[in-house]
Amino acid sequence: MKTVADYIMTIPDFPKPGVMFRDVTSLLNNPDGFQLAVDELSRRLEGVDYDLIAGIEARGFFFGSPIAYNQHKGLIAVRKQGKLPRETVAATYDLEYGSATIEIHKDSIKPGQKVVIIDDLIATGGTIEAAIRLVEQLGGEVVKVLFLVELTDFERSEKLNSYNIESLVQYEGA
Amino acid sequence: MKTVADYIMTIPDFPKPGVMFRDVTSLLNNPDGFQLAVDELSRRLEGVDYDLIAGIEARGFFFGSPIAYNQHKGLIAVRKQGKLPRETVAATYDLEYGSATIEIHKDSIKPGQKVVIIDDLIATGGTIEAAIRLVEQLGGEVVKVLFLVELTDFERSEKLNSYNIESLVQYEGA
Repeated sequence: MKTVADYIMTIPDFPKPGVMFRDVTSLLNNPDGFQLAVDELSRRLEGVDYDLIAGIEARGFFFGSPIAYNQHKGLIAVRKQGKLPRETVAATYDLEYGSATIEIHKDSIKPGQKVVIIDDLIATGGTIEAAIRLVEQLGGEVVKVLFLVELTDFERSEKLNSYNIESLVQYEGA
Repeated sequence: MKTVADYIMTIPDFPKPGVMFRDVTSLLNNPDGFQLAVDELSRRLEGVDYDLIAGIEARGFFFGSPIAYNQHKGLIAVRKQGKLPRETVAATYDLEYGSATIEIHKDSIKPGQKVVIIDDLIATGGTIEAAIRLVEQLGGEVVKVLFLVELTDFERSEKLNSYNIESLVQYEGA
């Protein structure tokens, strides 16, 4: 019986020397792997009361979309700056060198709505912390945060401790 | 009874003056709208024999993923240059100003596999023509190309005439 981890390839030195890149495209490409991953993520949401799924650009879209469709939930596109055509809220977070900004449409969440955030991978959690800020700024409540892959050796902001974060596969080391 | 078009917003002058931007994020955000769009796209694939869905970054991922998951097909990520970690094939196409390059992993298609390409919108068709070249370069066969939205006033390459292209909603004008 294959596990989700069996479908994920590790690419050394991408995008730069020293990084072990955990590649979910090999999983997507395999019908059994993709179905298994979406099924296991969906299982983590059984019994969870929520209204919307927020998928993080771009790999979060692969996993957030089928769950939103099958569970009849709305999908929020959390996108890099400048991609969304209407009025947005934006949050900036630090990268190793420099910073990045993500946005969601201002009308994508009504106050009180419950939101599940989905992405492919968490390392330091900078992107997710920014995404949580955006949801809360619009009055939404983050009820769960789901990842395929978790890199466990990165230091994370303590702010994330109060959220319900789960992942399907964990790797040690960067 | 609402149609797919009812969920698509039109944003004037985005990303630049004179452009009427057809915004599918408003559709994604609505559970009924998103489900209707995926259902109608899926209906266009009834009776079509195919192995893989190629989703075009990034909005094509929203629609390609649920169909691939529900039909137990593999998903190919057609991505902008530099995002994919393993060996790729690349195709460049012209934009109004300059050019753009898309890539897929070299091992994502086996010769003879049948591929459906999905994106949110077709205008001149430059991106899709490049995506078709990539599929065919790896020995795949493009059996259908599906869009949510088609802008009918753009001139298209004659090369596209021999492909089975369908869209759910058509708009005149740019």
